[in-house]
Amino acid sequence: MFTITKPLRFGDCDPSGIAYFPSYLNILVGVLEDFFASLGFPWRAMNDELRMSVPTVRLDLTFVSPGFQGDALDFALAVRAIGRASLDLEHTVSARDTVLWTARHRIVAASIDTNASLAWPDDIRAALTQQLETPHAHHPAT
Amino acid sequence: MFTITKPLRFGDCDPSGIAYFPSYLNILVGVLEDFFASLGFPWRAMNDELRMSVPTVRLDLTFVSPGFQGDALDFALAVRAIGRASLDLEHTVSARDTVLWTARHRIVAASIDTNASLAWPDDIRAALTQQLETPHAHHPAT
Amino acid sequence: MFTITKPLRFGDCDPSGIAYFPSYLNILVGVLEDFFASLGFPWRAMNDELRMSVPTVRLDLTFVSPGFQGDALDFALAVRAIGRASLDLEHTVSARDTVLWTARHRIVAASIDTNASLAWPDDIRAALTQQLETPHAHHPAT
Amino acid sequence: MFTITKPLRFGDCDPSGIAYFPSYLNILVGVLEDFFASLGFPWRAMNDELRMSVPTVRLDLTFVSPGFQGDALDFALAVRAIGRASLDLEHTVSARDTVLWTARHRIVAASIDTNASLAWPDDIRAALTQQLETPHAHHPAT
Repeated sequence: MFTITKPLRFGDCDPSGIAYFPSYLNILVGVLEDFFASLGFPWRAMNDELRMSVPTVRLDLTFVSPGFQGDALDFALAVRAIGRASLDLEHTVSARDTVLWTARHRIVAASIDTNASLAWPDDIRAALTQQLETPHAHHPAT
Repeated sequence: MFTITKPLRFGDCDPSGIAYFPSYLNILVGVLEDFFASLGFPWRAMNDELRMSVPTVRLDLTFVSPGFQGDALDFALAVRAIGRASLDLEHTVSARDTVLWTARHRIVAASIDTNASLAWPDDIRAALTQQLETPHAHHPAT
Repeated sequence: MFTITKPLRFGDCDPSGIAYFPSYLNILVGVLEDFFASLGFPWRAMNDELRMSVPTVRLDLTFVSPGFQGDALDFALAVRAIGRASLDLEHTVSARDTVLWTARHRIVAASIDTNASLAWPDDIRAALTQQLETPHAHHPAT
Repeated sequence: MFTITKPLRFGDCDPSGIAYFPSYLNILVGVLEDFFASLGFPWRAMNDELRMSVPTVRLDLTFVSPGFQGDALDFALAVRAIGRASLDLEHTVSARDTVLWTARHRIVAASIDTNASLAWPDDIRAALTQQLETPHAHHPAT
């Protein structure tokens, strides 16, 4: 599981004093960017060299508890499934030992030039597969 | 059904040339704000006078087709259910006669001071009920 | 002078209850986009067909009075000077008959491919020149 | 001088492929927040306990060179002057050993309740004064 902590800033909160949820999602995209970079695939190179981006096609969000300015947001990202061009993720975001929100998230590999989906390149697929978090994920033959 | 058109701006798009989805959600919050204002309940008054905000608790997003800089985004917001403190909405967002994305969305009325849920005030509930889009919605006894 | 009114939204304000200034600037870029569109030069076509964008090179901001959620922001944009590749603008932003902030703003025409400055194309220059707001601007021979 | 490095993310860039300047300013506000926290004054406590925020009243920006997705932005913040309620800062933002942009920046201490300026509390003033970067700043008697 990929984990990273991000601050919830003054500028991410709204006049009601809690996190503005579109700002949460901006932070989440940064976490996804960090995840790919941690695997050796920074987005700029994917964009420029492979002409590939990873748009979101599904995102199911559940907001459980409000986030406050100054919270340290602990993101946990789990890889749940890898398709030809898709990737299914689960996110759990916590602060103060409380789950603030969760997300089920599907992204796809897509061509920047045509917006059509693209099969994951072998090296990216291999790296993502190593992150798979399902029972027996690494032992498909057993 | 509440409908409104919003431009997809240069600043809402990303280096891959399509809409950055957190920007879509910032626009969506503005549509929700316009919807409440259209019913006679601008958020500033709700915030200041009623000490009430309407945070999102569930949001299930499906992105169907990419949005491009300069698109005119046609938002259609339908009220699907009204609970004691909750409101279930469905959004359909189109451009160029194509559905770009859809959302199932639950918000709740909440206290700005305690973050606890609050029953909808009678006048807001009455206005929301008039927007309900279900068969026989206005004739619960039949 | 180009004028347009934009709402200051819930999502543009911060936990101190007033406008978050980076959101003001996001709105300002939208005003600039509307200004170019009003002259017949929508940015998407400039970007795609001319491979030209208009990055900001100078921006001097003075914030006079706070903006509040729900304010109707009246933008007034004046063209002050046109160079080979540059454009000098002045912005005055008001609400409730009060000036909230002002800006002196220089943009340049630039190549999206090389980031080098580009001379304004003749038709854009002509349209911008018609907007020039200086004494005798429209009567150069007098 | 306070220094910190921040990534320039995919979501901070625009369809022309370079940094979207309002996103730069969102990042800058985060740097300012980090600066105050580094002195022992996190904004949430300032907001909640002192009912104080630090709005921007002047900001003069010069954009020298474009920032690209994936850049590591090196922020250097220098304190130039401290007034009764004001603070003058200078920012230099670099990447790839190149200055991307600079800013002269004045903030003021202000009441969240009245928006009026407030004298810096003694402890904050003392901490800021230790950061002053002017000749002889620490030796006023010489």
